[in-house]
Amino acid sequence: MAKIVKVSPLAPSRFPDIPAIKGVNFSFASAGIKYQGRNDVMLAILDPGTEIAGVFTSSSTRSFAVIDCEEKIHLKDSSLGAAIVVNSGNANVFTGSKGKISVEAITSTVSEVLNIPLSRVFSSSTGVIGEELPHNLIIDALNKMVADKTEHGIFEAAKTIMTTDTYPKGSVRKILTEEGEITIVGIAKGSGMIAPNMATMLVYLFTDASVKKEVLQSYLSEINEKTFNSISVDGDTSTSDTVLMAATGQSGIRIEKNDKIFSQGLTSLMTDLAHQVVKDGEGASKFVEINILNAKNYSDAKTHAKSIANSPLVKTAIAGEDPNWGRIVMAIGKSGAQAERDKIKIFFGDILIAENGWVAPNYSEEIGAQYMKNTAIKISVDLGLGVANTTFWTCDFTSDYISINADYRS
Amino acid sequence: MAKIVKVSPLAPSRFPDIPAIKGVNFSFASAGIKYQGRNDVMLAILDPGTEIAGVFTSSSTRSFAVIDCEEKIHLKDSSLGAAIVVNSGNANVFTGSKGKISVEAITSTVSEVLNIPLSRVFSSSTGVIGEELPHNLIIDALNKMVADKTEHGIFEAAKTIMTTDTYPKGSVRKILTEEGEITIVGIAKGSGMIAPNMATMLVYLFTDASVKKEVLQSYLSEINEKTFNSISVDGDTSTSDTVLMAATGQSGIRIEKNDKIFSQGLTSLMTDLAHQVVKDGEGASKFVEINILNAKNYSDAKTHAKSIANSPLVKTAIAGEDPNWGRIVMAIGKSGAQAERDKIKIFFGDILIAENGWVAPNYSEEIGAQYMKNTAIKISVDLGLGVANTTFWTCDFTSDYISINADYRS
Repeated sequence: MAKIVKVSPLAPSRFPDIPAIKGVNFSFASAGIKYQGRNDVMLAILDPGTEIAGVFTSSSTRSFAVIDCEEKIHLKDSSLGAAIVVNSGNANVFTGSKGKISVEAITSTVSEVLNIPLSRVFSSSTGVIGEELPHNLIIDALNKMVADKTEHGIFEAAKTIMTTDTYPKGSVRKILTEEGEITIVGIAKGSGMIAPNMATMLVYLFTDASVKKEVLQSYLSEINEKTFNSISVDGDTSTSDTVLMAATGQSGIRIEKNDKIFSQGLTSLMTDLAHQVVKDGEGASKFVEINILNAKNYSDAKTHAKSIANSPLVKTAIAGEDPNWGRIVMAIGKSGAQAERDKIKIFFGDILIAENGWVAPNYSEEIGAQYMKNTAIKISVDLGLGVANTTFWTCDFTSDYISINADYRS
Repeated sequence: MAKIVKVSPLAPSRFPDIPAIKGVNFSFASAGIKYQGRNDVMLAILDPGTEIAGVFTSSSTRSFAVIDCEEKIHLKDSSLGAAIVVNSGNANVFTGSKGKISVEAITSTVSEVLNIPLSRVFSSSTGVIGEELPHNLIIDALNKMVADKTEHGIFEAAKTIMTTDTYPKGSVRKILTEEGEITIVGIAKGSGMIAPNMATMLVYLFTDASVKKEVLQSYLSEINEKTFNSISVDGDTSTSDTVLMAATGQSGIRIEKNDKIFSQGLTSLMTDLAHQVVKDGEGASKFVEINILNAKNYSDAKTHAKSIANSPLVKTAIAGEDPNWGRIVMAIGKSGAQAERDKIKIFFGDILIAENGWVAPNYSEEIGAQYMKNTAIKISVDLGLGVANTTFWTCDFTSDYISINADYRS
């Protein structure tokens, strides 16, 4: 079945200008795994001295590539080179013992051709699941790829890892420290889902800062919770979600723990990429920010936020530009986290919709309906129970989501 | 906006023939709360001696009617009469202090006109939320209703409590005990949802068996877990869900604890009504049964079942008749409950789809695609970890769901 792929109406106007990061080289191949006429294998070659951190999906049916990365991520010797190899078109998930064989074959080949230890080669696969990965195509390609490497490959890298994404996703932040400038760049794919593919979010971040492994991991884990762990398209979770960050250290500028400027820069970059992922949600016509304020604790805040973000009734109301705040009340009520009806305040943007267990006195349906015409919708819920806040991002739920996901696999 | 309401393609061919239950009388009124030209208030009048049990929504934003029922349900003196009053068209939820006033006004009126204690009057409301219930319309109607009561009102009762349901839901089971025949009947509404209404499932069960209050409550709670607590349309939970069961005792036949025949009869009736609710899910085109087998424990089994049943990716695949078993793998993986990839067996109907962490050797897409054309779809997942099983029912997710729920409120 032919499909007309239209770019999300929420897409940014263009891919940003992203400079090269010293110590990071890219190489690409069109291995023909599934797609024709485009690159589908990306290799990031990282100079000796590069520290790598990662966070991964918690799915109990996660891929061998993820399990392999998890095992390797704790290695502490960065005096050796490293590499990240990613293919699109096949996720190599739920492929029995063949899955492990494919991961080992691909990572061993990278290890040999680059002459770096196997334990420093990280891999990801994204695409169809349950089908054997034709890893020989990737291995053949890898043998030719290394000769043709470039520092200026980030735009091509963003395109190579796309599956059903409607646009490539990239971001850059320059951070001025007391010792000079460092740069953080990143690319992401996901979470467009289309039969027969499954949503997978893959994110690769690179910086020329010099950051100790444990410190890098702690920045990544902490900021990931407030960015990539605070988005959803439909509440479904991939078996392959991977966020890897590489710090080459080649700026010569050292970043220590609790560096506020670095943390803010990385947060800003990861937030930007997370928003780009949500804005490419299938069928998305509106970008939705959910703020939970004054929850009893952070866990409660997140539970309420997710309950609202993943409610089909809330998401369809937003698609229909319906200021149906009763569905917000429902989503809070069903979440299982603490809420007291009469303390809840609900806002659309800055408009107070409900308080004291009822609609706010000055609110009218007309005001709400006018607000819902915006492309970016902000819903805030003040629980009045504590001091914990969180922000979560999602998109609306349109009939395009159904038609994209219900189409029979061709 | 005018709406053409079509009856669900999964609806039963007709409403069953349901006999009167001795000790139960009905009365109706068209109070004009929201709908015109139909009854919207139902009063069930229960003779002295009737025992009542109930289970209710766990939502933290549940309605005053639910809170009021919860407070009354534990009263043990059944020597007095009792009543259940239900209105459709307005849910009286999130209506501030007015909500409580309305419930008190309605239940007090019933108490006065029937001369039964206030503590024996149970009420439910279903319909729009956040709008003040015009309870005076109901009170005016109640004063006229009592004179006109009938034993033969169950079909009219099923119709009166409908909101966006496309057909009335009723069921009957006759149970032959050693001492003679008893009858259990029931009606249900839900869980069609349409702007601006919110899904509410209301269920009223009546039997002429003589059952002690605690025994009745324990049958109801236990069987509710495997029936009404094992269905979903979209994973959203109402603020008003109520299941009430009244045992008049007028057959003179006593039912004690652990009566297998009574338990089977009630389970069969509640399962039938639960299925009727699912089959009226908005936009539903397929009825889906999910069996989780050999889970570590019951809680894990239920968590996996819900994760599959509420996954938009699984539900849209079923709507598209796509045997996309990878999405079942994803839903198991993300559920948080225990699973071991290589022990999972997945079946569509009796067809083994996947085992040993991969597609089953004899399975082909053609076989799966043929199976998915059925209107009733059975998905079974054998986890191979323990001995806990559960069954869950849901419907598919079609573009009609989106259009029904995204339509602007008129």
